[in-house]
Amino acid sequence: MRVHNFGAGPCTLPLDVLEEAREEFLEFSDSGMSLLELSHRSPAYDEVHSATLELARRVAGAPADFEVLLMQGGATLQFAMLPMNLLGPGSSGGYVVSGAWGAKALASARKAGVAYSAWDGVGYGFTRMPAPEEIRLDDGTRYLHVTTNETIGGIRMVDFPESGTPLVADMSSEYLTRPIEWDRYDVVYGGVQKNLGPAGLALVFVRRSAIEDGPDLPDFLAYRWHAAANSLGNTPAMFQIYLMGKVLRRIEGRGGVPVLEAETEAKASMLYAAIDESDGFFTSPIDRAVRSLTNVVFRLPSPELEARFLLEAAHRNLVGLKGHRSVGGCRASLYAALELDSVSALVDHMRTFQRDAR
Amino acid sequence: MRVHNFGAGPCTLPLDVLEEAREEFLEFSDSGMSLLELSHRSPAYDEVHSATLELARRVAGAPADFEVLLMQGGATLQFAMLPMNLLGPGSSGGYVVSGAWGAKALASARKAGVAYSAWDGVGYGFTRMPAPEEIRLDDGTRYLHVTTNETIGGIRMVDFPESGTPLVADMSSEYLTRPIEWDRYDVVYGGVQKNLGPAGLALVFVRRSAIEDGPDLPDFLAYRWHAAANSLGNTPAMFQIYLMGKVLRRIEGRGGVPVLEAETEAKASMLYAAIDESDGFFTSPIDRAVRSLTNVVFRLPSPELEARFLLEAAHRNLVGLKGHRSVGGCRASLYAALELDSVSALVDHMRTFQRDAR
Repeated sequence: MRVHNFGAGPCTLPLDVLEEAREEFLEFSDSGMSLLELSHRSPAYDEVHSATLELARRVAGAPADFEVLLMQGGATLQFAMLPMNLLGPGSSGGYVVSGAWGAKALASARKAGVAYSAWDGVGYGFTRMPAPEEIRLDDGTRYLHVTTNETIGGIRMVDFPESGTPLVADMSSEYLTRPIEWDRYDVVYGGVQKNLGPAGLALVFVRRSAIEDGPDLPDFLAYRWHAAANSLGNTPAMFQIYLMGKVLRRIEGRGGVPVLEAETEAKASMLYAAIDESDGFFTSPIDRAVRSLTNVVFRLPSPELEARFLLEAAHRNLVGLKGHRSVGGCRASLYAALELDSVSALVDHMRTFQRDAR
Repeated sequence: MRVHNFGAGPCTLPLDVLEEAREEFLEFSDSGMSLLELSHRSPAYDEVHSATLELARRVAGAPADFEVLLMQGGATLQFAMLPMNLLGPGSSGGYVVSGAWGAKALASARKAGVAYSAWDGVGYGFTRMPAPEEIRLDDGTRYLHVTTNETIGGIRMVDFPESGTPLVADMSSEYLTRPIEWDRYDVVYGGVQKNLGPAGLALVFVRRSAIEDGPDLPDFLAYRWHAAANSLGNTPAMFQIYLMGKVLRRIEGRGGVPVLEAETEAKASMLYAAIDESDGFFTSPIDRAVRSLTNVVFRLPSPELEARFLLEAAHRNLVGLKGHRSVGGCRASLYAALELDSVSALVDHMRTFQRDAR
């Protein structure tokens, strides 16, 4: 019995993709072996690899002057690689700290170069985003780092600062469910384990001119090295790349980013409506204008009711709804492969629970 | 039809492990979802993760004062992390350059700290290993890095230098097919995609005292961070960890490292015997005393004969036998999951081919 999986990542994947991968699991493409056993230098794998890179570029709409890189280490390794690759003597990275992930990105950057907080939402409990004029940039700022969607806090950036400084964005938890204004960015990155595939792979877009004359870093830490090797400098996370290829092909076939965006908005609207129409039984702490569309954070009147709500949800096969341990409450993640039916089932549970609790 | 896969990595995996994973692929342990969709914070995944860590420690025989770490980025990221974590002001890393991988480890280390070649086999065409007294250590050497087996060159270190300086070893291509003298090492590491699982995971053993007071590095680059978080600081390569767990359980059930070692020796003996008894038709360029047991490199009298040999091998379902593009010739990798029958089939092909070619 397949559950409704609202997990914040890793998360639900398209069932047809899983079924296809299962079908091919023991023997890939008449190779006499599993994809897991293929050489990463074999023509059979190369086809998978190249197709995934091309699909990622096409679905994201990345211009030709961006490199598409497939790397291991998730967004967390990117937190280190970004300043290592982009900063030099006299330059620094500004960070919008809009939640836990922005804070982690800044903390790692400070250990790899000069980085500072250009705006910090901690004083607001991470319930609002900065107005563009609130963001303070130091002289010599090489890039402004934003977390376009904070997975834990459930908040998203809607208005991007027009400072002229290139943006660098962690989009992990809303990857390809919203369009990317490429001319504003030098780097767009994210772990794929929310919208695009299983854990163990980061998809990174880097503007070529941003890495032409960078510092001379150890191989794996240099964007240039990955770019020059077509993300095959060492053995890549082949299974994740293969599966993400299947997911991207499905996304493209269904209409790409515009369709994912519309579906995401529809799912989020349905859930926020249920919250807002509950007469204060369910509440969202987040400024309405910047509520996340992919991580819907909400509270019930008491921790006891929250615990019961989660327990009864599980009995109805609604899982992964517990808020992050650092903030508590509930969180429903509405990633690309989550069906609208799952949101309906959740809304149904919310209404029933509220009625019975009164 | 399953082929005999002599690939140098990724490589053949135990068929029963693949079949088991296929069986569980759509629903893991009554969770209502695939393992690929599980939260890395869920009890179901935590059980897999902890069990794999414990199995790795037990099978490797790692003492309690070693941390067992599961990381992404392969051995190549370790080439950078090692000097970053272990070197400080005034200390350096010595490297035995016994082939392509030793050279790469040194090149990355030079970009991350002070590192030097303590012995270089390039003048010998990487056909011999240093005698312990040939290794020259600078004052202030923090560690001596060795590549215990060179995957491309097909050479292995048999005698380890007794310098008193802690050793750091890349064991990727012979991981757990030979015992590890733990008291000599501060770090033992390797990508798992040869003996232990699919690509996308590195298994790293680090002596706890070696990382107690290291530099303050960005999260993902710090061994301390991975150790403190039990390799769950960020979303790990869950599928690889799950599969490696199955492989390790199977290895343990079959008798562990001593059995793998004996099997590896048996496979290598059979193949080297066929080479040595071919009256010079097949030749190994490597000093007999240090021939690799897992990557058997050999040549035929001419490149034309080599091409025909490989083509006819493929017709007999013997694949992955082409030497690395940098050295040419043939290479048969005899990793843990390759059956003795596969080696027999190869030897059979060698004899037939030689007879018909004369």
